[in-house]
Amino acid sequence: MKPNLYQEKHRIMYYETDMTSRLSLGMLLNLAVLVSEDQIDHLHVGTQLLQGDHIGWVVIQYSIHVNRLPKNNEVVTLSTQSKYYNQFLAEREFLIKDASGKVCAKIDSNWILLNLRTRKLILIKPDLIKPYGAQLVPVLPHLRRPYPIKNQHDTVSRIYRVRYSDIDINHHVNNAKYLNWMCDVLKPYFLVQHVPQDINIKFSHEVKYGTNVTSRVKMIKQDSNTVFTRHEITSNHQISAVANVKWIHKN
Amino acid sequence: MKPNLYQEKHRIMYYETDMTSRLSLGMLLNLAVLVSEDQIDHLHVGTQLLQGDHIGWVVIQYSIHVNRLPKNNEVVTLSTQSKYYNQFLAEREFLIKDASGKVCAKIDSNWILLNLRTRKLILIKPDLIKPYGAQLVPVLPHLRRPYPIKNQHDTVSRIYRVRYSDIDINHHVNNAKYLNWMCDVLKPYFLVQHVPQDINIKFSHEVKYGTNVTSRVKMIKQDSNTVFTRHEITSNHQISAVANVKWIHKN
Repeated sequence: MKPNLYQEKHRIMYYETDMTSRLSLGMLLNLAVLVSEDQIDHLHVGTQLLQGDHIGWVVIQYSIHVNRLPKNNEVVTLSTQSKYYNQFLAEREFLIKDASGKVCAKIDSNWILLNLRTRKLILIKPDLIKPYGAQLVPVLPHLRRPYPIKNQHDTVSRIYRVRYSDIDINHHVNNAKYLNWMCDVLKPYFLVQHVPQDINIKFSHEVKYGTNVTSRVKMIKQDSNTVFTRHEITSNHQISAVANVKWIHKN
Repeated sequence: MKPNLYQEKHRIMYYETDMTSRLSLGMLLNLAVLVSEDQIDHLHVGTQLLQGDHIGWVVIQYSIHVNRLPKNNEVVTLSTQSKYYNQFLAEREFLIKDASGKVCAKIDSNWILLNLRTRKLILIKPDLIKPYGAQLVPVLPHLRRPYPIKNQHDTVSRIYRVRYSDIDINHHVNNAKYLNWMCDVLKPYFLVQHVPQDINIKFSHEVKYGTNVTSRVKMIKQDSNTVFTRHEITSNHQISAVANVKWIHKN
């Protein structure tokens, strides 16, 4: 069985970019969710199969490689396909390509099926995944777990109150906001001088409206051109997300 | 001279909507700026005439009437035209129409020309406005000034730290964020139960990165179906924006 590739064009809007006029990391995740939702609609596996039973796909990890972040007004092609799944997990790949066909970013991701009311895991039945052309495998391609912050020494943190605009239709914090909190805790001059090359982010507990989160970062400088950062988002003394980012100096 | 009407189609993305799956108020302003920037590019009055001299159009007031906020995935037509100007001010009208041609929202606005380096007012010379087909008039159509909060009695306020993601390419806070702060200070159950019908927002001082702002609101209940709110955003003891909103209960 061949996986179904779904793709669409997207123009990068100025409000999807940051201070540097390049697509923001949060919006990169929004574009991934956008094209996966559109594939669900395209394959007609949305309303009937999912919403009727209050079942939804929830992402638990993104591993992102960025060659370059597309700029304001650029028209890119977003594509996605799901090649493999097992009973508990489905993988999904995203590509963002520029007009010349060059890959701007590649995202590998792992998804689970949840009962959106009880938040309990649902086993992935073949009829739900069949339209994607995904193949049942005993072991999924491995996404490396991001390293946690082991000790608090030399960390910087900040508390964020969840805002109304952070909440999506499911009354949970939109995943893109985690990356905003992770970036915001870094200094603006660092963000302007560096570009993210690899981002590995794993979500463990969802954040709800009305809570405060702490965004903590530890910087591990490698050399004059490369900086590694380790991030965690905690809420109610529980880790909500862990991420590792490799940054390259712009020169 | 007939004003040049510029229009384009736009699909409402899920990340442009709020908890109710309708276009958020902040994104409504982003769409207005988007279509006005696109008209500037279309008329070739951008790069050469503005950026070379570090001159930019800055909005000082929006008066918005909402019939209904478009929903997630809806394709709307955004249009804009500038009919009138004088030496100091240009007016610009925006329409958001749905697929059947019905007006979802109408926005009237006033703009000034600023030297983006010195932040000083620039007189609007005819050659800059000519491509828009705008007409020089002694007095512009009047946009009513929003009522300020006269006394602090019965107001609710909250302090917001400007985040990295609030800042745009000009290193200032994106105007849409003011409306986010104004909405966030209201209760979520109020925002879910009410829809904004009229929004009148006037900007006076720009907010820069690294500052805190206070968002203050006073509710003036009219009857069971209508609520008026008065908002102000202050920064460094200076008023940055004042807004009045008329809300209708959804029933």
